[in-house]
Amino acid sequence: MSILCVGSVALDSVETPFAKADRVLGGSAVYFASAATLFAPVRVVGVVGDDYPLAELGFLAKRGADLSGIEEREGKSFFWAGRYHSDLSGRDTLATELGVFADFQPKIPEPFRQSRLVFLGNIDPSLQHDVLDQVESPQVVACDTMNYWIDGSRESFVSLLDRVDILMVNDEEARQLADEPNLLKASRWIRERGPDIVVVKKGEHGAILFADDWLFFLPGFPLEVVFDPTGAGDAFAGGFMGHMAASGSLDTADLRRAMVYGSVMGAFTVESFSVDRLIDLTPDTIEERMLEFHEMTAFEAHIEVEERV
Amino acid sequence: MSILCVGSVALDSVETPFAKADRVLGGSAVYFASAATLFAPVRVVGVVGDDYPLAELGFLAKRGADLSGIEEREGKSFFWAGRYHSDLSGRDTLATELGVFADFQPKIPEPFRQSRLVFLGNIDPSLQHDVLDQVESPQVVACDTMNYWIDGSRESFVSLLDRVDILMVNDEEARQLADEPNLLKASRWIRERGPDIVVVKKGEHGAILFADDWLFFLPGFPLEVVFDPTGAGDAFAGGFMGHMAASGSLDTADLRRAMVYGSVMGAFTVESFSVDRLIDLTPDTIEERMLEFHEMTAFEAHIEVEERV
Repeated sequence: MSILCVGSVALDSVETPFAKADRVLGGSAVYFASAATLFAPVRVVGVVGDDYPLAELGFLAKRGADLSGIEEREGKSFFWAGRYHSDLSGRDTLATELGVFADFQPKIPEPFRQSRLVFLGNIDPSLQHDVLDQVESPQVVACDTMNYWIDGSRESFVSLLDRVDILMVNDEEARQLADEPNLLKASRWIRERGPDIVVVKKGEHGAILFADDWLFFLPGFPLEVVFDPTGAGDAFAGGFMGHMAASGSLDTADLRRAMVYGSVMGAFTVESFSVDRLIDLTPDTIEERMLEFHEMTAFEAHIEVEERV
Repeated sequence: MSILCVGSVALDSVETPFAKADRVLGGSAVYFASAATLFAPVRVVGVVGDDYPLAELGFLAKRGADLSGIEEREGKSFFWAGRYHSDLSGRDTLATELGVFADFQPKIPEPFRQSRLVFLGNIDPSLQHDVLDQVESPQVVACDTMNYWIDGSRESFVSLLDRVDILMVNDEEARQLADEPNLLKASRWIRERGPDIVVVKKGEHGAILFADDWLFFLPGFPLEVVFDPTGAGDAFAGGFMGHMAASGSLDTADLRRAMVYGSVMGAFTVESFSVDRLIDLTPDTIEERMLEFHEMTAFEAHIEVEERV
């Protein structure tokens, strides 16, 4: 099953305490697709300027991405530059040049309109509405956003929630959206407005899935070196939706596994600049880290041991 | 198997955004024993002034605590007063009156000296050394500390590490001790100086056990209300060591379960002031939360599913 993904296709310049990368592949749609195509085909919708190195997205096409929804326009591509703080937990934005992205009007190509799985990357909520208007009958709509839209386009975003099945945000965004510091209460507030599932990403502290009568909490994968945190959240979404597309299942066992695949892809992503680590990943390497997650978190509850004896 | 526990037996006055408690039971030894006695007998060594409501510790004696190592001296008991910030993640100390604790010289009663399991609560490292000098051949020594000693008595504390099997500290303390922001590297630094196991407590974000070639990472139990965070770390240690004493096992399956029982006891503790929530806990309630932790974290790795099919 293919996933329709709409988001930014950008160039990033990133400085970390370790190194510097200049005008490398970035943007929510690129990170999402780089992770999701390891599991299932992805249809990408976005816009780039005539300066974009589209050939560098060739690895996505090879893995079954349909890039025909990336519109090429005269002008500059979306460019973001940032510098991470020494502990990598915060960052300063040095430049944001919207370029052709400023007038982005997502046009969903005819063959993409019957997509059953939709990922709305972090863009203006009014554009996220526009995308859904063009999709015929999506089965699962997952959605990301950021503090900028929660603050500045609150009404539009809250009305979008009713059209979303899975909201994926980080802990600060969840708290800000619900105006509630407690994540259990915040996720309930959000779910009351539409999404059946809220996935809260907590960076190095892991991620929590909140559903109606259950939750799943996976810790972050401990890494010796976090090289560049950019895009981890979008890669998480890619692993999550990718597993969902590959398994074709929404049962709780598969949603739990989707959380793990999301975390696996997020953890790989931060090991290098841009999507570098995701380009040559093999299914075996992914499964290996999946098992490492299992080994790191599994325990036998006492009662099972007693039953076993 | 009994656990020897040496630490503070104190009175706390605590203000939270929700309420206020005045001169209630507190101190590392009290929190530890309140959790650990739900699993195994505990021998408590500490000192109190003649103002201490020792009768209020009766519930510990009923659960198999031997309180004969609590010395009663003329003067005031150790008193701490603090006020938590609105999000409960930070606190201000309003008063610290050491009282008779200022001259505390732990004397381990003769019948306690053959204890196989020892918990050194957060006290001056030179006193932690003194305790170990008096114990004949401990099998497992677990130890807590705080930034104050890591900073001010660094040499004494680092030399203690060689006598410790399990160091239990919070994430900031681990980073400070090893002068290393990355927890994987910090725990390796610590383990190279003695402890086979380092348990890093991360509050609401859970706890990680680092051993030589494996680690176990349990998320924090999501709570709607954190009423009073005081003592959660000591209650964690109590649940951890309590299970160790009850199971008599140090194998990895039991160390994982010890982590869960520690987290369970920490989560109960923060639901009320002081040790209130621990006084009437039943084994069934504890097992129930153990299973909730399991339900919240368990997943089947993909490869197992394939094998099962």
